[in-house]
Amino acid sequence: MLFRQLFDKETSTYTYLIADEKTKEAALVDPVIEQVDRDLKLIQELGLTLRYCLETHIHADHITGTGKLREITGCDGIVPENAQAVCANGFIKDGEVLKLGDVEILAIATLGHTDSHNSYLVNQNILLTGDSLFIRGCGRTDFQSGDPGLMYDRVTQKLFTLPDETLVYPGHDYRGHLVSTIGEEKQYNPRFVGKDRASFIEQMNNLNLPNPKKIAEAVPANQKCGNVAVMAEA
Amino acid sequence: MLFRQLFDKETSTYTYLIADEKTKEAALVDPVIEQVDRDLKLIQELGLTLRYCLETHIHADHITGTGKLREITGCDGIVPENAQAVCANGFIKDGEVLKLGDVEILAIATLGHTDSHNSYLVNQNILLTGDSLFIRGCGRTDFQSGDPGLMYDRVTQKLFTLPDETLVYPGHDYRGHLVSTIGEEKQYNPRFVGKDRASFIEQMNNLNLPNPKKIAEAVPANQKCGNVAVMAEA
Repeated sequence: MLFRQLFDKETSTYTYLIADEKTKEAALVDPVIEQVDRDLKLIQELGLTLRYCLETHIHADHITGTGKLREITGCDGIVPENAQAVCANGFIKDGEVLKLGDVEILAIATLGHTDSHNSYLVNQNILLTGDSLFIRGCGRTDFQSGDPGLMYDRVTQKLFTLPDETLVYPGHDYRGHLVSTIGEEKQYNPRFVGKDRASFIEQMNNLNLPNPKKIAEAVPANQKCGNVAVMAEA
Repeated sequence: MLFRQLFDKETSTYTYLIADEKTKEAALVDPVIEQVDRDLKLIQELGLTLRYCLETHIHADHITGTGKLREITGCDGIVPENAQAVCANGFIKDGEVLKLGDVEILAIATLGHTDSHNSYLVNQNILLTGDSLFIRGCGRTDFQSGDPGLMYDRVTQKLFTLPDETLVYPGHDYRGHLVSTIGEEKQYNPRFVGKDRASFIEQMNNLNLPNPKKIAEAVPANQKCGNVAVMAEA
């Protein structure tokens, strides 16, 4: 398997390129519209065919590159079950597997940050957590139908029950961490360590974070797969 | 082996944490002074003992974390042979190996960006290139005794002769790439592809880049291992 982590500095967003080295089929998870040229160039240089753009959720902080990538490559835009994205070519729900040759991408519904959100477990040991579990943190739960109780349940029951050595690759990091493990997060994530469900909810309801700068444009644009041209007409 | 890439967003600098999982001995390559607390916390959480801070070269764009880390942990600050760093505990020259338990870190002198510069090959397949080879680029050669001819020679003769699958981890990236391979860089690095020594030199001599913002403070500070307190007295 080929696996590449990519970074958008402006929004501190990680995009992931996953490909089967034999069939050369590839997927991009959470592409960013400003980075489409970079990502396409890399895909081309590596001799890959982009089959899927896969979203962990409808983002509020950046516009997805999916619409633009689909227009150029003809790939399918796939979003979690129940995501409000009429533009999607397909939906993927908890327990479903997307295959790229021999590479298996298992969807694990980890709601809480938003009311439709998947983590993706790649070949059983690489976990893309989107905006559910971060390295020593977690996604916020105070807009877009966020629900701290659900976040707690899904992270502790569905992610923290994976093997300790599972690699954790988040959707964002703001401090320069790139990867962690489930074992580390269970032991050191300050949002979860020593907290029961009630105290986790209390903590999340009192973060008082400012809204993401791009939320007003990003959410409606991402519901249209980041197809900004369609947006302008709407 | 434990291997972690870390990022400083302000200067787009990568720091690398390398450790032997049995002996728990660790080295940090190119730490950044503003990230010392983050790095120490991670080292502590992972149960590691910091033995070495290892520099690829005397940096011009950021102040090293070595002085501060040495003060706190007692680790040794190691720099390339001939580096103008009176503060160093030790020098490492081309072909020398630093060991952390079973982990081997081989110094490969890759001059050109500066007149003392090492790449480090970890366990024969992870290549930390510092400011010599970048992903689809290379370090500049227009100050600090930079020499584009030497850069060309060392990259093409010492790095491009490594196996194609060798992973390339640079000292910086400004476009959100995190890792590449020797095979990819030989094929797609625009600074080198299709260029002989003379045209590489001409290209590098005509980049007309502005000086790094921090050069006036960073170079003298790094010659003292980033010991800013000593700096202030000097």
